[in-house]
Amino acid sequence: MNMSTKPKLEVCLSPALLALYDLTGATVVIVDVLRATSTICTALYNGAARVIPVDTVEGCIELGNRLQAITAGERDGKVVPGLQRGNSPYEYSRDRIEGKSLVLTTTNGTRMLHMARAAGEIITGSFPNLTSVCDHLVEAGRPVVIGCAAWKNRVNMEDTLFAGALIHRVRAHFEIACDSAIIAESLYLQARQNIFNFLRNASHFKRLSAYGLEKDIVYCLTQDIAGVLPIYRDGELVRA
Amino acid sequence: MNMSTKPKLEVCLSPALLALYDLTGATVVIVDVLRATSTICTALYNGAARVIPVDTVEGCIELGNRLQAITAGERDGKVVPGLQRGNSPYEYSRDRIEGKSLVLTTTNGTRMLHMARAAGEIITGSFPNLTSVCDHLVEAGRPVVIGCAAWKNRVNMEDTLFAGALIHRVRAHFEIACDSAIIAESLYLQARQNIFNFLRNASHFKRLSAYGLEKDIVYCLTQDIAGVLPIYRDGELVRA
Repeated sequence: MNMSTKPKLEVCLSPALLALYDLTGATVVIVDVLRATSTICTALYNGAARVIPVDTVEGCIELGNRLQAITAGERDGKVVPGLQRGNSPYEYSRDRIEGKSLVLTTTNGTRMLHMARAAGEIITGSFPNLTSVCDHLVEAGRPVVIGCAAWKNRVNMEDTLFAGALIHRVRAHFEIACDSAIIAESLYLQARQNIFNFLRNASHFKRLSAYGLEKDIVYCLTQDIAGVLPIYRDGELVRA
Repeated sequence: MNMSTKPKLEVCLSPALLALYDLTGATVVIVDVLRATSTICTALYNGAARVIPVDTVEGCIELGNRLQAITAGERDGKVVPGLQRGNSPYEYSRDRIEGKSLVLTTTNGTRMLHMARAAGEIITGSFPNLTSVCDHLVEAGRPVVIGCAAWKNRVNMEDTLFAGALIHRVRAHFEIACDSAIIAESLYLQARQNIFNFLRNASHFKRLSAYGLEKDIVYCLTQDIAGVLPIYRDGELVRA
């Protein structure tokens, strides 16, 4: 393949920067490693019929009632009163989610999904479904924008690191002419021997650890334990 | 020094994210490595009376006329018709700038200076004055926000890399609880053996190289060859 014919791959490190990227015809990979996109692929991997991302807690409760679906979510890393479940992937084992619909609202990840509506295609990425995402991107051959959910618009370590892991795996198939992509891959190359330890300094790692959620973090950093590709169609995330 | 008493150091990777940072009482270090802040410290090091940053080309010409000052700047890395000089540090040798005033407008750097007006103190940083900046930050003991000028709001390699170099030098004196700061330092640690080669993949490196400006890039990546501290006072950058 000639270099100039390869599709572009770019990384957007914060939702506040998304307007700078041309999403037309692109596959947008939404990334919220701790924990929205890890939880989404886990629920779908374990047989959830669909995951419906919504922006607000009120919208989550209203839609959950209307669809008789499970309501779930978090704000600032914590469970929200009025929702049935939280944002831990461990709450979505097969016996608890198979065949059911989930309405989900999170601090950063669900908002990013809605912002990317102009894209040709929207999928979600996380370490638990890394290979599924890579395989799809290479096969689809579209331009790619990796959209990091970040933390309240601040660039974060874990989503940048995942972007780097993804780039490192697919770089031969894309033109990488985006400084953020190079920065992300560089971070991943430094961290990959022990991502868990590397992330100990990350602000959201500290936040979740303080809530006793280290087990969640370990899960969210484990590659390919929920190998499914969530794709966003008509307002719902379903298995591709 | 007790850890909790150390002032915070944070990094803002794009002007589009600056509103997320509390600049009150902080020292803001504006960084536009290629080439605005490298050129600013060079001009002041070589005896310029002051450098006045302005946002627009029209404003630059108008103020230059009024003050009988040198007008200079670039847009998209290129010289602007109507201005007397460009944005190359090599245009500001002592025989050409000593005692004179310079009115400067650039694509990214000058805008960032104006955006940071809420700060307690604004200085500019670049490799040619790295040690001067480090010494000042440690001595002042204020909270620090490193503000990367980026490229039209997109995160760039060279400013992130400089932020990392700065953090690596002063980290013992500050509380570093900002993911962008950790990412920047990680990038620097990967790049420091040969920053020039590392930057070959950066988008603005390619842009400037295409204009034959590799000599400028080498200059802008050389540490402590213009050891002065530009400080922003009453709309002007002067030697501290």
